[in-house]
Amino acid sequence: MTSSSQLARMILVGQGKAPADLVIKNVQLLDVITGAVTPTDIAIVEDRIVGTLAQYDGLQTIDGAGRFAVPGFIDTHLHIESSLVTPFEFDRCVLPHGVTTALCDPHEIANVLGAEGIRYFLDCAERTIMDIRVNLSSCVPATGFETNGATLEIEDLAPFRDHPKVVGLAEMMNFPGVLAGDPGLLAKLAAFQGGHIDGHAPLLLGMGLNGYLAAAIRTDHEATSAAEAREKLAKGMAILIREGSVSKDLEALAEILDANTSSFVALCTDDRNPLDIAEEGHLDSSIRRLIGRGCPLHHVYRAASHSAARIFNLRDRGLLASGWRADIALLDNLEECRVSDVIAGGRLVTPDRFAARSSVEPVGLNSVKLQPVTPATFNTPANPARNQTPVIGVKPGLILTFRETATLASTDEGLQPDLAADVIKVAVVERHGRNGNIGRGFVTGFGLKRGAIASSVGHDSHNITVVGTNNEDMALSVNRLIELRGGFAVADNGAITAELALPIAGLMSLEPFETVAATLHELRDAARAIGCVLPEPFLQVSFLALPVIPHLKMTDRGLFDVDAFDFVD
Amino acid sequence: MTSSSQLARMILVGQGKAPADLVIKNVQLLDVITGAVTPTDIAIVEDRIVGTLAQYDGLQTIDGAGRFAVPGFIDTHLHIESSLVTPFEFDRCVLPHGVTTALCDPHEIANVLGAEGIRYFLDCAERTIMDIRVNLSSCVPATGFETNGATLEIEDLAPFRDHPKVVGLAEMMNFPGVLAGDPGLLAKLAAFQGGHIDGHAPLLLGMGLNGYLAAAIRTDHEATSAAEAREKLAKGMAILIREGSVSKDLEALAEILDANTSSFVALCTDDRNPLDIAEEGHLDSSIRRLIGRGCPLHHVYRAASHSAARIFNLRDRGLLASGWRADIALLDNLEECRVSDVIAGGRLVTPDRFAARSSVEPVGLNSVKLQPVTPATFNTPANPARNQTPVIGVKPGLILTFRETATLASTDEGLQPDLAADVIKVAVVERHGRNGNIGRGFVTGFGLKRGAIASSVGHDSHNITVVGTNNEDMALSVNRLIELRGGFAVADNGAITAELALPIAGLMSLEPFETVAATLHELRDAARAIGCVLPEPFLQVSFLALPVIPHLKMTDRGLFDVDAFDFVD
Repeated sequence: MTSSSQLARMILVGQGKAPADLVIKNVQLLDVITGAVTPTDIAIVEDRIVGTLAQYDGLQTIDGAGRFAVPGFIDTHLHIESSLVTPFEFDRCVLPHGVTTALCDPHEIANVLGAEGIRYFLDCAERTIMDIRVNLSSCVPATGFETNGATLEIEDLAPFRDHPKVVGLAEMMNFPGVLAGDPGLLAKLAAFQGGHIDGHAPLLLGMGLNGYLAAAIRTDHEATSAAEAREKLAKGMAILIREGSVSKDLEALAEILDANTSSFVALCTDDRNPLDIAEEGHLDSSIRRLIGRGCPLHHVYRAASHSAARIFNLRDRGLLASGWRADIALLDNLEECRVSDVIAGGRLVTPDRFAARSSVEPVGLNSVKLQPVTPATFNTPANPARNQTPVIGVKPGLILTFRETATLASTDEGLQPDLAADVIKVAVVERHGRNGNIGRGFVTGFGLKRGAIASSVGHDSHNITVVGTNNEDMALSVNRLIELRGGFAVADNGAITAELALPIAGLMSLEPFETVAATLHELRDAARAIGCVLPEPFLQVSFLALPVIPHLKMTDRGLFDVDAFDFVD
Repeated sequence: MTSSSQLARMILVGQGKAPADLVIKNVQLLDVITGAVTPTDIAIVEDRIVGTLAQYDGLQTIDGAGRFAVPGFIDTHLHIESSLVTPFEFDRCVLPHGVTTALCDPHEIANVLGAEGIRYFLDCAERTIMDIRVNLSSCVPATGFETNGATLEIEDLAPFRDHPKVVGLAEMMNFPGVLAGDPGLLAKLAAFQGGHIDGHAPLLLGMGLNGYLAAAIRTDHEATSAAEAREKLAKGMAILIREGSVSKDLEALAEILDANTSSFVALCTDDRNPLDIAEEGHLDSSIRRLIGRGCPLHHVYRAASHSAARIFNLRDRGLLASGWRADIALLDNLEECRVSDVIAGGRLVTPDRFAARSSVEPVGLNSVKLQPVTPATFNTPANPARNQTPVIGVKPGLILTFRETATLASTDEGLQPDLAADVIKVAVVERHGRNGNIGRGFVTGFGLKRGAIASSVGHDSHNITVVGTNNEDMALSVNRLIELRGGFAVADNGAITAELALPIAGLMSLEPFETVAATLHELRDAARAIGCVLPEPFLQVSFLALPVIPHLKMTDRGLFDVDAFDFVD
C-alpha cells in the first residue's frame, strides 16, 4: 500500500515541483478512451504514473524518440503451464511483448499437485516482474472420467481467496455440473459471489446459458463464433477473445469488437506454446491481427488493457494517466503493435531486472509415480463382441476428435496397428501413483510409420499419453519419461531420438525458454522423421485424453465417448 | 451473500425448470452495450435476474405491456441532505424516478454531528428500498475559515471503511490541501488507496490536476465546461455529469458523452431540492435532456447505469441480464425516459414496500445550540478606516458571489442598510455551541424591501445565515429557528410569515417530502412578499457562507475574501 509520504512525493512530482523517479520523454500517448494521440512526457514515481500531457524532469529518463505509448496489455486467461516453462521464464519470455499483467489459472499443476501447485504459482507471482494474478482453479479434477493427482474442494481453495495475487474463481468448466446443481460446485460458486467468477461455456446458449449465468459467472473465453459471442454479450458476459496455440478464435470473433462493445471485450491466449510466442508473439500478435481485420485501433488497445482491468477488477491499471500503475508498452508503430520497450511497475524491463528476481524452489519434481512398463503393457486385446474397432480420428489443429472405425488384425499380442491405413496405438498410463490404470486403443491421423511419441502433459489430468506403431517404442518412450520425471519423448526403432524434460509436475521445464523452444524444434523434427504429419504432434497428443471435448477420447480408464458421456464397453 | 441453496434455485429457474419469484412479461429490453431493443420476459429470483431473452413462468408476474426495460439508474454523487428530507423520504421520493442506487456523501450532517451523522445515514441505508451507498466525507470541516460542529480525521472514518454500504472516500474538495501535502488529507488518501476516492476539483487543470490525480483520485463532478471535462477524461478521470438545483452542468457537458466515452461518464445530481425533483424529475430528467441534446440513446442509459456501477465498483449491477441485480426501470418511452414502474432488488416498488420499512431514530435533534438573540446582535459598527463598505453581490442561480461596495449611513446602531440601493444586512451566527461567533456585513441582490430570511442550512458548516432589512426581523427569524431546532423562516414586520422546521441536525425535516415541497412553495411566496427577487432565496442564503466559492463570503468569523483567501479586516 502507498503510504502518506509516498503520496506526498507523488503529488509533488505530479505538479512538477520535484524530479520524477523516471520520465519517458517524447512519446506519443494513445488515449484508449477517445483515440487521441498526443505528444507528451510521462512522469513516474515508484510504480505509479504521476503526470502526462506535460513536460517533466526526472532522475532517470528514457528517450521515447517519438514512439507510441499504450497501456500494458493484460492476458485475461491463460495457463502458464502451456508455455512449458516456469512462471519466471514465462515472465522473461512474454513481458517483452508488452504483457504486463497475466491472469493465470494453475489448472494443470493443480490437477497434478493440488493446493501445492497453486501455492507454487502464488509464490512465483510474488516475485515476477510481470504482475501475474491467479484465478483459483474451480474444476480439479475436471471430470470423474480420468484419474488425476488431486481434488480441490472449496475448503482447499478458501485459504487462498484473500491472497493479494488472487483475483477470483477460475474458469467454471463444468457447466453441466453447474446446471445440474452439483453441491461441490455450488459451494465454490457461493463462496465467490461478490467476487470474480470466470466462465467457460463452449456453445452454451439459450436457457442453459441463462441458468449458468444466474450464478453470477461473468466472462467467457470459449465463444468460437460471432453469433455465440453476441448472445453472450447480450446476456452480460464479457467476451475474452482467445488466440492460443490450440484454440484460435480471433478470426471468427474480430467482428464483435467495435466502439459499442470494446469495454466489454478483452483478450486472452489460454494455451500458447513457446514456439508460437517466439514466432508470432503473444497478445501483441492478437492486437496486430485485430487491427488488421478492421477493428477500430484504440478500441483494440482498450480491450487489451483498460477493459480487461475493469472486467477483472484490477482498478489500478489500464490507462496512461496520473494515478495509474505505470505499466506501459512503447511501440514503434500502432497498427503493427511492434513493442520495443516495456515499463512494468514503473521501471524499464531489462535483462538485469529478470536476473535480480529471487527464486522459488520448484515443486512436484517426483510427480511421475509409475513403475517402468514393458512392451506387453500395450497389448490391446480384441473385443470379441465386435468386428470393427473404434478409432479416434485426429485432424491437424483440432482438439476435437472424430469417431472412426477400422478392421484390425489380431495376434497373440492383441489387435495390431494398420500402418497402411494410418491406424496406430494410443495408450494413457495413469502416473499419479493412484491406481496404475492403463487405457488402450487406436488413433488415426498422426501418419506415423515407425516409433512412438509420449507426453506427460495430457489435459486435464496429465497422465502419460503415448501413441506408437509398436509396443517396444511405446514402452521405451514411456520409460524415458519416467526417467525424465515427465516431459516429451520420441522413440524410433529402440532409441530415443528427441526429448524434453518437464520435471515440475511433469508439466514444466527447469530450463530457459530459449532452450525449451529449441528442443521443441528437435522434437518436431524427430516426430516428422518417423512419419508424423501433424504440425503440432505434442499438442495433439496432450489433448487426446481430455474427456470434455467431443467426440472420442482415451483416458486412463479407457476409451470415452464424449457424446454419450460414457465409456465405450 | 447468496447461499448454495439460493444459487441452486437461481440456476434451476434460469433454465426454465422451476417458476421464478417474479416474471416481467412482455417488455422490450434495451441492451446498453449494443443499443439493441429486444422483446423478452425477465425472470427474477430473490434480488437477482436469472433469465432474459426468453419466456418464463413465475409465481408472480408483472405485465410489461410492451414497455421498455432499462437498468435502474445510479446517482453517483449527491448529498441527500439537500433534499431536506430524511433518507427514507428521499427513497420514497426519488426511487419512483428509476434511481435504484444512490451514492451519497453525508457531508452536511457530518459537518454538524460528525461520525454520528455518518452512522445515521448508514443505519438508514440498511433499511431503504433504494440501495443507498455512502462515500465517507473527506473534508469535515471544509475549511478553517468558519466554525462547524465536528472534525473528522482518518481515525474517525476508519471504523466505517468496511461497512457494507460504504463505497470509499467522498469528494476530496480540499484540492489546495492535497497539492500542499496536508498531512491529515494524505492520511485519508493513503487509507483509501486501492479503494475508491471521489474527486472534486473545479477548474483544476494542467500540472495541478496531475498532482491531484497522483493520489489515485478517480472521479470528478465539478467540470463545468466541455474543455475541462475533456482534459480530465484524457487524464483518466471519470466524469460525472452533474445537474442539480444549484450547479447545472448538463448543457455544457452533453457534448462529451458519446460512443467512445460512455463507459467513462456517469450522472449525478449533487444537490437537488424537492421542488425540482417534483417539477423536473431526478436522473430521469438528465437522461431525457441528454438524449434531447443528441447524445446516443443507449450510451446515455449506459452512463446512467452500467458505467456508474463500474466506476464505483458496484459489480453486481448495471446490466439487465442473468446473474445481475434486479434493479429495473420500466419506461413508456425511451427517448423521453418516462418511468412508469420500478423494480428494486427484485421487487416492484409500491407504497406498501415503503410503508413496511423499519425506521431509524432521527439524530441531531438539538443541534441548534444557541441562546436567543436580540435585535442589537445585528448592529454592524462602521469601520473608521474606510468610507466604502464591502458588499457581497448575489446574482440569481449563482453560488459564486461578487465583490461590491456601498457608502452606507451610520447611526448609533452602526451601519444602516440602503434599501433604495438594495443593500441589506447579512449575518452568520455560529450555532454549534462552540464559540458564539457572529459575522456581520452587507449583501445586495436579494431585493428585500422588508423583513428577513433565515436558514440553518449554510454550506458547509451550517451555521445560521440571515439576511434582512432590519435588526428586529433578523432577530425574530433567528430566534424562530432556535425554537424550530433549525429550518427556514421568513419574518415580516414582527411576524413569522412562513417557516419550515428542519430538526434533524438543522438540515432535514421529519415530514413527508410532499409536505416539505408544499412548505417550500409557501416560503418562496413569503420571500417574494417582502420583495425578494431571487427565484430560490433559500438556496442562495444557504451558500452565502461557503468560503471555498469565490469571491466574497460571510462566515461566523467575518467577511471572507476567497480570492485573497483571508478575512476582510
